[in-house]
Amino acid sequence: MTYFDFLETVEFEGPGSKNPLAFNYYQADKKIGKKTMAEHLRFSMAYWHSLTEDGSDPFGNPTMDRPWNNYQDSMDRAEAKVEAAFELMSKLGINYFCFHDVDVAPEGATIKESNENLEKMAELLKKKMEATGIKLLWGTSNLFSHPIYMHGAATSPQAKVFACAAAKVKKAIEVTKYLGGENYVFWGGREGYETLLNTNMKLEQDNLARFFYLVIEYAEKIGFNGQFLIEPKPKEPTKHQYDFDCASVLAFLRKYDLEGYFKLNIEANHATLAGHTFQHELRYARINDMLGSVDANQGDLLLGWDTDQFPSNLYNTSLAMYEVLKNGGLAPGGLNFDAKVRRGSYQLQDLVQGHILGMDSFAKGLEVAHSLINSQEIEDLISSRYKSYQEGLGSKIVEENTSLEELAEIAQSFKLSEIKTNSGSQEKLEAILNRHLLGSLNSD
Amino acid sequence: MTYFDFLETVEFEGPGSKNPLAFNYYQADKKIGKKTMAEHLRFSMAYWHSLTEDGSDPFGNPTMDRPWNNYQDSMDRAEAKVEAAFELMSKLGINYFCFHDVDVAPEGATIKESNENLEKMAELLKKKMEATGIKLLWGTSNLFSHPIYMHGAATSPQAKVFACAAAKVKKAIEVTKYLGGENYVFWGGREGYETLLNTNMKLEQDNLARFFYLVIEYAEKIGFNGQFLIEPKPKEPTKHQYDFDCASVLAFLRKYDLEGYFKLNIEANHATLAGHTFQHELRYARINDMLGSVDANQGDLLLGWDTDQFPSNLYNTSLAMYEVLKNGGLAPGGLNFDAKVRRGSYQLQDLVQGHILGMDSFAKGLEVAHSLINSQEIEDLISSRYKSYQEGLGSKIVEENTSLEELAEIAQSFKLSEIKTNSGSQEKLEAILNRHLLGSLNSD
Amino acid sequence: MTYFDFLETVEFEGPGSKNPLAFNYYQADKKIGKKTMAEHLRFSMAYWHSLTEDGSDPFGNPTMDRPWNNYQDSMDRAEAKVEAAFELMSKLGINYFCFHDVDVAPEGATIKESNENLEKMAELLKKKMEATGIKLLWGTSNLFSHPIYMHGAATSPQAKVFACAAAKVKKAIEVTKYLGGENYVFWGGREGYETLLNTNMKLEQDNLARFFYLVIEYAEKIGFNGQFLIEPKPKEPTKHQYDFDCASVLAFLRKYDLEGYFKLNIEANHATLAGHTFQHELRYARINDMLGSVDANQGDLLLGWDTDQFPSNLYNTSLAMYEVLKNGGLAPGGLNFDAKVRRGSYQLQDLVQGHILGMDSFAKGLEVAHSLINSQEIEDLISSRYKSYQEGLGSKIVEENTSLEELAEIAQSFKLSEIKTNSGSQEKLEAILNRHLLGSLNSD
Amino acid sequence: MTYFDFLETVEFEGPGSKNPLAFNYYQADKKIGKKTMAEHLRFSMAYWHSLTEDGSDPFGNPTMDRPWNNYQDSMDRAEAKVEAAFELMSKLGINYFCFHDVDVAPEGATIKESNENLEKMAELLKKKMEATGIKLLWGTSNLFSHPIYMHGAATSPQAKVFACAAAKVKKAIEVTKYLGGENYVFWGGREGYETLLNTNMKLEQDNLARFFYLVIEYAEKIGFNGQFLIEPKPKEPTKHQYDFDCASVLAFLRKYDLEGYFKLNIEANHATLAGHTFQHELRYARINDMLGSVDANQGDLLLGWDTDQFPSNLYNTSLAMYEVLKNGGLAPGGLNFDAKVRRGSYQLQDLVQGHILGMDSFAKGLEVAHSLINSQEIEDLISSRYKSYQEGLGSKIVEENTSLEELAEIAQSFKLSEIKTNSGSQEKLEAILNRHLLGSLNSD
Repeated sequence: MTYFDFLETVEFEGPGSKNPLAFNYYQADKKIGKKTMAEHLRFSMAYWHSLTEDGSDPFGNPTMDRPWNNYQDSMDRAEAKVEAAFELMSKLGINYFCFHDVDVAPEGATIKESNENLEKMAELLKKKMEATGIKLLWGTSNLFSHPIYMHGAATSPQAKVFACAAAKVKKAIEVTKYLGGENYVFWGGREGYETLLNTNMKLEQDNLARFFYLVIEYAEKIGFNGQFLIEPKPKEPTKHQYDFDCASVLAFLRKYDLEGYFKLNIEANHATLAGHTFQHELRYARINDMLGSVDANQGDLLLGWDTDQFPSNLYNTSLAMYEVLKNGGLAPGGLNFDAKVRRGSYQLQDLVQGHILGMDSFAKGLEVAHSLINSQEIEDLISSRYKSYQEGLGSKIVEENTSLEELAEIAQSFKLSEIKTNSGSQEKLEAILNRHLLGSLNSD
Repeated sequence: MTYFDFLETVEFEGPGSKNPLAFNYYQADKKIGKKTMAEHLRFSMAYWHSLTEDGSDPFGNPTMDRPWNNYQDSMDRAEAKVEAAFELMSKLGINYFCFHDVDVAPEGATIKESNENLEKMAELLKKKMEATGIKLLWGTSNLFSHPIYMHGAATSPQAKVFACAAAKVKKAIEVTKYLGGENYVFWGGREGYETLLNTNMKLEQDNLARFFYLVIEYAEKIGFNGQFLIEPKPKEPTKHQYDFDCASVLAFLRKYDLEGYFKLNIEANHATLAGHTFQHELRYARINDMLGSVDANQGDLLLGWDTDQFPSNLYNTSLAMYEVLKNGGLAPGGLNFDAKVRRGSYQLQDLVQGHILGMDSFAKGLEVAHSLINSQEIEDLISSRYKSYQEGLGSKIVEENTSLEELAEIAQSFKLSEIKTNSGSQEKLEAILNRHLLGSLNSD
Repeated sequence: MTYFDFLETVEFEGPGSKNPLAFNYYQADKKIGKKTMAEHLRFSMAYWHSLTEDGSDPFGNPTMDRPWNNYQDSMDRAEAKVEAAFELMSKLGINYFCFHDVDVAPEGATIKESNENLEKMAELLKKKMEATGIKLLWGTSNLFSHPIYMHGAATSPQAKVFACAAAKVKKAIEVTKYLGGENYVFWGGREGYETLLNTNMKLEQDNLARFFYLVIEYAEKIGFNGQFLIEPKPKEPTKHQYDFDCASVLAFLRKYDLEGYFKLNIEANHATLAGHTFQHELRYARINDMLGSVDANQGDLLLGWDTDQFPSNLYNTSLAMYEVLKNGGLAPGGLNFDAKVRRGSYQLQDLVQGHILGMDSFAKGLEVAHSLINSQEIEDLISSRYKSYQEGLGSKIVEENTSLEELAEIAQSFKLSEIKTNSGSQEKLEAILNRHLLGSLNSD
Repeated sequence: MTYFDFLETVEFEGPGSKNPLAFNYYQADKKIGKKTMAEHLRFSMAYWHSLTEDGSDPFGNPTMDRPWNNYQDSMDRAEAKVEAAFELMSKLGINYFCFHDVDVAPEGATIKESNENLEKMAELLKKKMEATGIKLLWGTSNLFSHPIYMHGAATSPQAKVFACAAAKVKKAIEVTKYLGGENYVFWGGREGYETLLNTNMKLEQDNLARFFYLVIEYAEKIGFNGQFLIEPKPKEPTKHQYDFDCASVLAFLRKYDLEGYFKLNIEANHATLAGHTFQHELRYARINDMLGSVDANQGDLLLGWDTDQFPSNLYNTSLAMYEVLKNGGLAPGGLNFDAKVRRGSYQLQDLVQGHILGMDSFAKGLEVAHSLINSQEIEDLISSRYKSYQEGLGSKIVEENTSLEELAEIAQSFKLSEIKTNSGSQEKLEAILNRHLLGSLNSD
């Protein structure tokens, strides 16, 4: 059964093509530096948005009639989704996917039932993966949709809920391992609070740490070697999520001696909801050696909720890829399109178009970032800006070979008005960025 | 020389008084539980706002004609400020104050000159403190106003600036010690960035840690026993401040093994600029044993800058005092009015009125918080909500005496629809809060 | 059939009562000035939130098991809802309700079918209204949930959708008239845009005006005398809603000569999403003689979506009632609880508790506002602040009896530093507000 | 006397040039459609930011040592500023400037004194304008910096302040006329409120209208033919500014029958502070025939204050120029760089670089917008989206040739599930935008 019959394999046709079902910029095999675009970008399809999303929102009913949902039986629907998913990925040339347990298999009345469904579906997924070469970037378990998780999962006030969450994660890790998943993600859906008036925050955070200890112990036991990832988000659905941003997660991990077991999965739209730029969160993770993977989407900074739009802003994709290149790449992580087409973009063509938009935007972003780094224009300016730390007084500071008294003694003699620092040169740097953004094609 | 001749000592006149220069709620000696209001609240005047502020803003010139500024010579002005400060505190019954070096002594062309000014002023302050019994809650050094700090102080790209900052902090700690200051605060004025394009974030954060190492070493050497405090703020003046919020500071301190040396100084308006409630930041600090002191002001959640208003919102003061009482108090910290009267409240009476508003609001907040805790209504609800962790399955989890497999085994048997969790009861809790807010006077 | 068997009629038990199912402050018959609380407040239940809401959100499934929904047949469910609605209102002492067409009658495959359902349900509602004395505050039509409205209703790019919207509004007005509804509301659900790239904003706004012309013509024809209301909201579900705030609506109405036909229905949470305080929107509507009715809820200013919480903040309810009293009341409008219990407040008791919270909060707000106005403390200060416009120069300005040249001539002689304006006295006013908030009970 | 000796006339060197003091994209004489870039863009320098700004902010002292400020006498400084201003504009090829009265002439102790200073400076400006051919885009009067305006100018509670404002505006209009200014701007600096508790909003808004009546009368009397412009801003310095956004201004103008006398001066950063995109405000003004002029800058959407950055974001400049081209241009308005270099960009080179960045960004934006419109890709999609209004049912609606009954009758027959509307195609449109942004150079 096929679902995208209107679609051939999406091809690169170059910047001049007006064909909405072709790539203007993404060429899987094009070398950018030493790696191909595909190797750099490691695109992944998000099963939930691309297959499950139906266009409903808090004010409206579904708008999207997805043919793979037109089956009475829930397992039939699940199987149809697999067909549609792999057809879509194959035609788009996307080599990875990500899923929650409930995206691929119907939830039962008991964990046992859910697990059985999941096992069956995992077999089918495995076959499809072998047939197509498509791989699993990461798996995860949905611990927020079922009503038992209304007050959290690992941070639920009800111990039975904690146990259910444990059971689901156990199975999801097993399935991820079975499918060769390269990572496993924790997004703290409702791990947070609605009001402090009813919340024992200390117990909840302690329990969250306990949950992770249990998971790590089990993963080691079964030999799951994938990278664990935590995905920060500041709010929504809860008023306050414990994994507010990268810094909050790091504070938590360091408190409970968990830092070595995790990296971060950074989502653009979550970064901005937390009051940070996407690049900030990537940079912060990178210099803390915690940049694991990316949820590639974009938000609307004038809106206060997670709009999960397909990435189109080339400033964001360029600066994100700048951080990724500086990080030496993302592997075993990748760029997962945690993005959905707008409610009014209800046709299958829109779904394809959304992915093309995202892939082209990141392909161009990769080129811009590569061009920027190649030119060393930014690096030279930074280098010159901080050069005082490479000699004399600055070296002493950096080598931790001085004291407050010595520094005070040295500083006594300075005439303050004569201390020179370089201009921050923000305007110049923004012009450089624009030049590379517009001109990178020519400069390669 | 006196400056507030219109003002007698401000007295408690009770809730019915319409005298704007009397307290409606604050009674220094009234016992709330085992301590007096004064002991609980430990109010402090902020030298910069109360003495130095002149009503100017980015769009307008000064509006406030403060008589203590009408002296030609800068040291004369500094001395007049001391007179005014102690007169104001004495008449208000405020027992503590806080200052930056530059608030009390004019800055010179060199650090040496500045230090000499500061030493002279410290002597005068000490005399006044001895004469009045008023104490120093905390001292600090202004590392953000002088142009040399335009790109940061400890995180400046220029090593000489780092040295100047070191010299200033050295002197400020010495002066704080000399005056018996109970704390010393670091607010990271421009420790952050304007654009990532010009920023070596890793070096800057490493240098910030190095700066703290130097300070701690020196403080130990000279036997300064005050508590070091870090004051988070997310943005303003810079686009991004490294000490974004409590969690960011904790992530930093834990990374550099600095946690034991610091506590947090939490400002209401900074909390909300970071996207948190004031109570959230207090709670978070408290459960991490990091609640050190409070900058008692309030912001306007519809405005995106630090308005530093005098606290008037009784919800905020009640919930803040709830956390403070749960913390066993703030000492050696206190409630510092990091607050300024509005630009249009340009008269001396307004300055007095602002402090009375803040003191009354926190006095009432203390009563409400005490009443809430006394009634145990919230505590009982929370207790019942989490009771599943006190036995059986929950105990195993909390005592870390289980495994993912065991939990999964247990959870297999649950029928999901039969797992019961308590309602979150937010509406009921908000009604309880209102009842105590309105009725606490009667219930004591 | 009854649904709230755990509940007796909710009674006033006074501020000291800890009974969560009693009023602490609301006494329907208590006189505040010349009217009773019930006459001032004109509380209304929102059919959609109170009967239809199931606790689902974009990240989770329903949590609320409402017994009136446990019927197979959609008309049976609709009838059960009526039973539950009138039982709830009767027990709470709420005298008004509001509904969308789809809240009370199932939507059909055609407008004709929907209308037939609606007519049947209207008969049942009428009987219940007659039996209980409960009245209809306003009716409206849901023009945003069905997928045909995905790009708007009156502003849809598809003319057939415009026609469907017209047909639905026609019927909804007829039903509102039939039930004696005192108002009819237009909330512009999806009248706005997702992206300007695909939008003909001029045509859409012209069409919106055309829609209103048609409606007004028809209402006059059938003799519907209820007040038409427009409810502003800035965003959500769309990126930008045309009825952004009160000022946007007024700009629109004045452009199309529609001002005389409408008043505004102001929602607290919509005000703050637009960057205004609730009081601002009420004040702005009031001085433009456009204050029609109120959607009484509250938002969370740190969250960027419409949380529709039950009102609990006494500052908001006091300042809202201050504007309402200044307006001479709201009639024929009222205070409609466009509010829902939190997803975790999933029990029927919570639903009752939410309404009690809202009613008590507005009852207390009414008392505070009355006390404030009675005391004239604010009015006296304002009066004194603007007194220069009551004589001499100021009178000339206000009476429009001067010229730029005359004013310039007069102003030439002023020494700027000698022009005196009163202090804004914000701190003093905030203290007055707190005093009345806390003490109003005693002062009456 | 010259101040920019390091600078030759800034030349176009093309996209490949790394010379930071050359244009990459702006070519004054390049034809884009029928007009040159210079004719389309009508760039203007903002006197206040470019000449007066010193790098101070609420947390810090000046950083910028501008040589033209190094004169003892205030009139000498004013004259030096003129020299610097015209040198800078001449070298940059900027043909217009804008100023407030206080930017060009020192304020005196009386209006009379200020006027005399202004007259003298106007003569000097006129000479410079004649010598260079540079023209005045608009003049205005600063009614917010002097302390007498602390509570507003035309909306001040003090009638004398109203009179001073009248006197200042009278003179500023005279000077604008004398200099051949093509527009005159009103930005409502402090026309708003800090708290509603002390505000008579109705009187204040009535007075604002009275102020405009007086101004219009006088302008007609003296034959000033320039366009009056109002510049919306939502907040800052006051908590709420009456001219919140374009819609608020239109609501006001329409209420007081003032619409025909004004157009809007739209600032990018003010738009976003009000919760709108820059394009939204331009579009809204355009379809209301109110698009007068533009303050070309950009804000940071994660910051809550007016950062007034030089425009660099090509999405914003492209979509702004799209609206400008659709408007048939801006004349007699223009693009005024109401923008300042960052505090850390303290050198004269940065000031030049900022303007180059802005000019290049708008030049490129113009090219992209032209390319977009030329291709008609967006227009075709919109046209097809709304085509149902061009025939049959849709025509009846648009021609206002139907009734609610007729529409309801027609709609009865529709099967809702068969009504087809086009996809919103947002993803496709965003891809088109990117294609033109990146490729417009080639397509010309």
